[in-house]
Amino acid sequence: MNKIFIDACQGKDVPYSPVWMMRQAGRYLPEYRAVRKDAGDFLSLCKNPKLASDVTLQPIDILDVDAAIMFSDILVVPLELGMKLDFIPNVGPVFSDPIKSIKDIQDFDPVKCANNLSYVYDMLKITRDRLDDSKALIGFCGAPWTLVTYMIEGTGSKTYANVKKLIYTNPEFIHSLLKVLTESLKLYLEKQILSGADAVMIFDSWASALEKDTYLEFGWKYIQEISTYIKSKYPHIPIIAFPKGVSGYLEEIDGDFDVFGVDWSTPIDLAHKKLGSKYVLQGNLEPTRLYSKDAIKEGVEKIKKVMQNKRHIFNLGHGILPDVPVENAKYFVKLVQDKL
Amino acid sequence: MNKIFIDACQGKDVPYSPVWMMRQAGRYLPEYRAVRKDAGDFLSLCKNPKLASDVTLQPIDILDVDAAIMFSDILVVPLELGMKLDFIPNVGPVFSDPIKSIKDIQDFDPVKCANNLSYVYDMLKITRDRLDDSKALIGFCGAPWTLVTYMIEGTGSKTYANVKKLIYTNPEFIHSLLKVLTESLKLYLEKQILSGADAVMIFDSWASALEKDTYLEFGWKYIQEISTYIKSKYPHIPIIAFPKGVSGYLEEIDGDFDVFGVDWSTPIDLAHKKLGSKYVLQGNLEPTRLYSKDAIKEGVEKIKKVMQNKRHIFNLGHGILPDVPVENAKYFVKLVQDKL
Repeated sequence: MNKIFIDACQGKDVPYSPVWMMRQAGRYLPEYRAVRKDAGDFLSLCKNPKLASDVTLQPIDILDVDAAIMFSDILVVPLELGMKLDFIPNVGPVFSDPIKSIKDIQDFDPVKCANNLSYVYDMLKITRDRLDDSKALIGFCGAPWTLVTYMIEGTGSKTYANVKKLIYTNPEFIHSLLKVLTESLKLYLEKQILSGADAVMIFDSWASALEKDTYLEFGWKYIQEISTYIKSKYPHIPIIAFPKGVSGYLEEIDGDFDVFGVDWSTPIDLAHKKLGSKYVLQGNLEPTRLYSKDAIKEGVEKIKKVMQNKRHIFNLGHGILPDVPVENAKYFVKLVQDKL
Repeated sequence: MNKIFIDACQGKDVPYSPVWMMRQAGRYLPEYRAVRKDAGDFLSLCKNPKLASDVTLQPIDILDVDAAIMFSDILVVPLELGMKLDFIPNVGPVFSDPIKSIKDIQDFDPVKCANNLSYVYDMLKITRDRLDDSKALIGFCGAPWTLVTYMIEGTGSKTYANVKKLIYTNPEFIHSLLKVLTESLKLYLEKQILSGADAVMIFDSWASALEKDTYLEFGWKYIQEISTYIKSKYPHIPIIAFPKGVSGYLEEIDGDFDVFGVDWSTPIDLAHKKLGSKYVLQGNLEPTRLYSKDAIKEGVEKIKKVMQNKRHIFNLGHGILPDVPVENAKYFVKLVQDKL
């Protein structure tokens, strides 16, 4: 059975632009909060294939989105490379021993890391079995640059001063770390595909932390490398690239991927003009528009006017916020799917 | 005596692109830390004309930059409208009673607010007297949108969810608040000019928090209104506009200002192409480049190659970081001024 999401990723004609939402399995859903409570902390949920599969499927059951994205976190990769990771309530992820020098990474082993992530593959297998044939299952990883940033800053940062200081004073060290991550992520995405992922997405949430030339060298280059590896081995699997905050130089963005994820700060008409003929576009409703049905309608209409339901996948331009009414999320999905 | 900075703002030919740095009177300077210690907390320093003048002049004495920017904070405006403001170490500014509804702003009085800011005008008068004729003195304010964001979120925010929820659910309320601020800021900048400011800069640090159409309506429109007011009354005073993070739609940016401040995330060649013939450009060295002399040199050369020392003022693309070596800041200034 054809999956409208996969057809759209491949640029085929589809009856409507398929729709899903970043962080669609998340705190705005009471059903998610219930499972999360049972699982204990956030990492325990990520590591529990059955429960992670349950929350992965919730947005399919509740919202009828066209794709499920596996429930996990980008930071399980540094975790399984051997770093100590905690998710602290109201703070977020924290690496209590951030990376400082080359000796901190000498034991990092990409093969071992990819093997350690078996709980993710188990979850994907269960989920693909449970998921209707018409719906797609999306795997994902964080891009090397975004992971490096967390691993060196230790947690979220306003200025990224530690990692950027190293870029400008010890670039070889940062490249060494990026290379280990790139090797790990190639194997990780490959194993996701072998476990049932129908498409994979690479999140570079902190592309916006670097100026153009620096991002192209320390960020985008490694996404290209991962994409080329996956595309050469699994040409039928769509790859979605999501470097957030590169609206100033979209014309520099190219590689072996199928779909470009447009963040909300990038005007959709600009993305359409610069990248729309080369890549299918995904996005980019402003997440806070979900607070108001009028704002959703206005935003969806603006995007439709540009994209004309061609070579487009609807999504938010960033993750759904925890206090959005579920009713509004449903309204967004139905509006896009012409089911109102 | 001609001020090279003012000449450059007005697009005149100058022997070199003048240079100053955002937050140049700041924690990276031991001399600043000493005065700050004497003054007590941050707000006490802002409110002390003599000490604020001392730190305003430090970068002139220590770095020989071409312009001094008055030492103050954008949040003194909401403070003098009547809000309770604290600067909490390691947290930043906090409004303990953020604005929730229209009744919280009904006593806001632009005239009273502008009059209450006399400590700023006193500081400017002292400083202009003490400053060499060849150096310019820059006044400034925060843009209405950035101020509204602080006033409603209460402090810095990752998602700006509270203020953006109001934009999409109660836009009239946000416009009312923006209007009161716009009136206050017109009078505030005017009084700065009458007290000795040779140029004024409008900082919209959180322009990046809104999507294009929303920013143009809730942010940029009010900067245009303030600029038009000031320009019509004081045509010889250069106005610098700094909406941070609008690289995706530079072609929409216009108004009665003279200089466009380019943040580091906007490629300088893009700004040059889209805005360079209409406005003088200011910026945009990546602040973390100041950690390394090689990185400074590379960054300065890239900018010079695009700007060719024409219609350009050198600056960082964001504020200088607290742990930058003073020696490197000096190197940057001397390199730009051809004094190495």
